[in-house]
Amino acid sequence: MSTASVEEIIAKLSPDDQVQIKRLLQGNPVEALEISDAAQALARDHDFEIAAFKTNSVADVTRPARKVRIAVIQNSIVLPTTAPLMDQYKAIEARVEKLIDAAAAMGANVACLQEAWTAPFFFCTREKRPWLEFAEDAREGPSAKFISRMAAKYGMVIVSPILERDSAHGQTIWNTAVVFSHTGAYIGKHRKNHIPRVGDFNESTYYFEGNTGHPVFETKFGKVAINICYGRHHPLNWMMFGLNGAEIVFNPSATVGALSEPLWSIEARNASIANSYFVGAINRVGTESFPNEFTSGDGKPAHKDFGHFYGSSYVANPDGSRTPGLSRVRDGVLVNEVDLNFCMAVKDKWCFQMTARYELYAEGLANYLKPDFQPQVVRDPSL
Amino acid sequence: MSTASVEEIIAKLSPDDQVQIKRLLQGNPVEALEISDAAQALARDHDFEIAAFKTNSVADVTRPARKVRIAVIQNSIVLPTTAPLMDQYKAIEARVEKLIDAAAAMGANVACLQEAWTAPFFFCTREKRPWLEFAEDAREGPSAKFISRMAAKYGMVIVSPILERDSAHGQTIWNTAVVFSHTGAYIGKHRKNHIPRVGDFNESTYYFEGNTGHPVFETKFGKVAINICYGRHHPLNWMMFGLNGAEIVFNPSATVGALSEPLWSIEARNASIANSYFVGAINRVGTESFPNEFTSGDGKPAHKDFGHFYGSSYVANPDGSRTPGLSRVRDGVLVNEVDLNFCMAVKDKWCFQMTARYELYAEGLANYLKPDFQPQVVRDPSL
Repeated sequence: MSTASVEEIIAKLSPDDQVQIKRLLQGNPVEALEISDAAQALARDHDFEIAAFKTNSVADVTRPARKVRIAVIQNSIVLPTTAPLMDQYKAIEARVEKLIDAAAAMGANVACLQEAWTAPFFFCTREKRPWLEFAEDAREGPSAKFISRMAAKYGMVIVSPILERDSAHGQTIWNTAVVFSHTGAYIGKHRKNHIPRVGDFNESTYYFEGNTGHPVFETKFGKVAINICYGRHHPLNWMMFGLNGAEIVFNPSATVGALSEPLWSIEARNASIANSYFVGAINRVGTESFPNEFTSGDGKPAHKDFGHFYGSSYVANPDGSRTPGLSRVRDGVLVNEVDLNFCMAVKDKWCFQMTARYELYAEGLANYLKPDFQPQVVRDPSL
Repeated sequence: MSTASVEEIIAKLSPDDQVQIKRLLQGNPVEALEISDAAQALARDHDFEIAAFKTNSVADVTRPARKVRIAVIQNSIVLPTTAPLMDQYKAIEARVEKLIDAAAAMGANVACLQEAWTAPFFFCTREKRPWLEFAEDAREGPSAKFISRMAAKYGMVIVSPILERDSAHGQTIWNTAVVFSHTGAYIGKHRKNHIPRVGDFNESTYYFEGNTGHPVFETKFGKVAINICYGRHHPLNWMMFGLNGAEIVFNPSATVGALSEPLWSIEARNASIANSYFVGAINRVGTESFPNEFTSGDGKPAHKDFGHFYGSSYVANPDGSRTPGLSRVRDGVLVNEVDLNFCMAVKDKWCFQMTARYELYAEGLANYLKPDFQPQVVRDPSL
């Protein structure tokens, strides 16, 4: 199967057709930003993709622009899954360090890594050990120390999605995004709210639904929230981050083609439109092979890899526009410069929040939750 | 500006590139169906587009397939808006009759027309008269008689979005979709839940938020609901139709390019994915000019037309796939054959409803509605 992305295929059209199809598919065009020599050298030397854009919006008259460069980072694992666990982690860390270096060299202010970036995405195996040894304390684990150092070094807010081991609560495991300040300090964490039970992916084998609500982290570079992976299929999850005031919501994911690729360009953008905030959609990249075979609940023979993680990370804007996506096969960093004030301007224009009739739905959901709920059905009397 | 659709531009690519970009943009390919000579003759003689597809899905083992052909119909107005009002209506009715004839000739079982199909889309003018004379009784008005006749003639369920005049309640006006049985009988109606206040479009000049809840109409051809126009921006509106058991939700719309076109391919599909039902997305087509000039709250000079309604009607499937869209400039009918059992199969696969944690959101919304609601914000202590 072709590895070409939508953008790579569109580039084959005539310039006029490119303009028209991009307008229809991607909305108001984002502007390509010049990329520093330093960033280009990093990308070349370490073989990854870089891209930088700017979302144009009309500046507010009475308050200064709040320009922020949002970075999304996607990467493959580095060593085989048979290598010693800490060697695997260290190799990924070294790779991610270069990607964060490049984000910084492109002026990124707030960056997010992919879901469970510290490890191969082993949930398809249903093996607990040795994999759960990748789980770590959110504030004190190896990745926390590394990310804290990088955040302080570059004055960058970094969202670090990891597997968390909660020793204070009986060694429970969580799928957690940890937020580090531009000072390097730990700000807080959010635990994945919705857990898939799809084929391979009954992730509740490893951890349960999050208990941290829908926090929004107020950082130097805006109000940031995290909707982890499968939570992107849940409009209510996106909504609640919006109601709590989010301006940027990251969706760190790990998802493979056959399962979800046609959905990938839809859900983050819809969330961005419906909630008038920016979304950074991030997917891991590459194919990961495991030592022992496993089945996937799909009637097919046992196998050792789960499928191809198709990358394609991008940023969606609240006016329905979006950046192009990163590659479907290569590691990469994409930066998008935005004015956070745009969220308010879009709200003033579209009024989705004011026209939402939330009271109708608070009541509707409360009613639906009753065991004897009766759906509102009008039956054709002739049936 | 080019009038080409995404599909027309993609057709210029190599066959291999077409397959790949369609897979990425439109998901599992729908199959083109053969179209009868009768339908082709109607389309040719009356100058409109026809298209027929089939969404493939694996049949259930224990229950027969519930094959239904869903039709979406888009049309322009026929006479100038200066013609006598009933002449304008009669000309549109005659045009729509041919479009329904073609839908029937393509085997359609359940069809939906565009928003306020009986009239030009005059809300941009803010003039009450003469336009509100287009409003009519939902059961007894001219369009009700016409649609009832067509529904009975073809044994087709027809959803007819009109302007309703409610004489029993002080001559109030509503934006209403009326549902007719395959027998021709009136089944019921639904009134638009969310009203835009966007530039031209403060439709609450004419009517208010609907008071009919989120009804699902149980017809011979499945459980049908209607999310009228601007309601498509509201994920909660889509959700509630889903919670009431909808299998097909129509989104009859009237929306112009500059405002919403980049959103058009996103919102109906996201609703279809999130709620595991089919969506028929319908937009009016053409540019409508009014006798008196009006402004649009955008600082631009007064003008007489609101913009180009870009058509592009399509059907979205619960697995994230979709049919191609109809033209951006021509009237048309698109039919998609589906097995309604696919909704349940997709739910069994993805489990979005079981993983939705509705109790969290019933509580979250109830809390949000309090005047002293405090958003869940974690502030960087260094700020």
